[in-house]
Amino acid sequence: MKLDHGLLLYEGKAKRVFSTNNTEEVLVEFKDDATAFNAQKRAQIEGKGRLNCLITGKIFKILSKRGLPTHFLNTESDTWMLVQKVNIIPLEIVVRNIASGSLCRETPLRPGKELSAPLIDLYYKDDKLGDPLITDQRIEILGLASSEIIYEIKELALKTNSILREFFLKAGILLVDFKLEMGFNLKGKLLIADEFSPDNCRLWDLNVDDSTQKIMDKDRFRLDLGGVLDSYEEIYRRIKDIAF
Amino acid sequence: MKLDHGLLLYEGKAKRVFSTNNTEEVLVEFKDDATAFNAQKRAQIEGKGRLNCLITGKIFKILSKRGLPTHFLNTESDTWMLVQKVNIIPLEIVVRNIASGSLCRETPLRPGKELSAPLIDLYYKDDKLGDPLITDQRIEILGLASSEIIYEIKELALKTNSILREFFLKAGILLVDFKLEMGFNLKGKLLIADEFSPDNCRLWDLNVDDSTQKIMDKDRFRLDLGGVLDSYEEIYRRIKDIAF
Repeated sequence: MKLDHGLLLYEGKAKRVFSTNNTEEVLVEFKDDATAFNAQKRAQIEGKGRLNCLITGKIFKILSKRGLPTHFLNTESDTWMLVQKVNIIPLEIVVRNIASGSLCRETPLRPGKELSAPLIDLYYKDDKLGDPLITDQRIEILGLASSEIIYEIKELALKTNSILREFFLKAGILLVDFKLEMGFNLKGKLLIADEFSPDNCRLWDLNVDDSTQKIMDKDRFRLDLGGVLDSYEEIYRRIKDIAF
Repeated sequence: MKLDHGLLLYEGKAKRVFSTNNTEEVLVEFKDDATAFNAQKRAQIEGKGRLNCLITGKIFKILSKRGLPTHFLNTESDTWMLVQKVNIIPLEIVVRNIASGSLCRETPLRPGKELSAPLIDLYYKDDKLGDPLITDQRIEILGLASSEIIYEIKELALKTNSILREFFLKAGILLVDFKLEMGFNLKGKLLIADEFSPDNCRLWDLNVDDSTQKIMDKDRFRLDLGGVLDSYEEIYRRIKDIAF
């Protein structure tokens, strides 16, 4: 389905952003493109855009209902979402409950180790530099955010984690880690933006013991485990009717 | 010159540590081995151990005189130093005044850019992991140091920077950045330990304009610029008689 939209403002790896008649709102189209390892691995997964759009819509509605500020306004169709226009802060905000991925390459923590407290890792969004880990002081020195904004970002990320961890548990799913992006709307308010989908988080099926079979997220694509779309569909099936 | 010492307790890339009759003190011998790029590049530079020992002794005396706690006790000979025994915290504490090295590979900052404030980067000392950059929260989660100790470490690093920046200026040298290590002595007091030498800092000759010729530190070895020993000798010549 195509929506009536304005100019293409931005095209990323997984989404396109278009202008609308309202300068404070933009339309986001979710694409079927899958990329991993800084876009060195690429594929088309038909139907992924639809599921990521539906899952993101559901999650943002939950967060709004719990009082968190997000850019989400409405799901316009299976692959289109209307959101507030935001100036994205060039940081990937990763919250981790269980050690996995790059954390295990950069510390002695073993994959699967439960962390004593949720860990927030911030990465500098820059493809050329390979999205490196960044410290709070480097963020300040680069002028990406003040210490007050960094604090606000972390508070919002922790609240998101505590809401969604409980939410996914109700669906029999463990929220291992996830990435958020945030930005300021035209009024200068900090909002959770971008998406929340299995492309940007790790979700493990609590009904499955096998360490590979339990993976429901983009690691199925990264690790060539197959069944990517079925798994995304299963996530949506389990969460879509949870009133929370 | 060989000193009367006890058992070899530890051998690193540039130093050997020996026990003494006093359980609270150890002897450190500075070696002529030079390594760079996580020991992928290696060489022997005759006389380097002597200069690093003499420079470290001078710097630690300056820091002590200014009231900072260091492990330094005495320079026993040109290559041997008597120090308090410390349990080293496995962190490389890097203070930067000017952007250089890995900071320029991990951010858009260009080499030579003066930072708006001294930047403290902490790295996890682990050769197998390649000494990765580490955030304060990762340090806490790994149990390497509490937030209070991290604060103390940073305060001590900043004080060191402010003293040494001024000290090197008197010698016509710009202190670009440097690495410290710290640890606890047997009484549990936090001390600046290890060494302070041109192997672990960047020093630029303020009397020279040429961006390569002005380099006085281990970058001469890393970048194959030659004249490593002459340059270390020149540093010692300029600082050894500065009363500060």
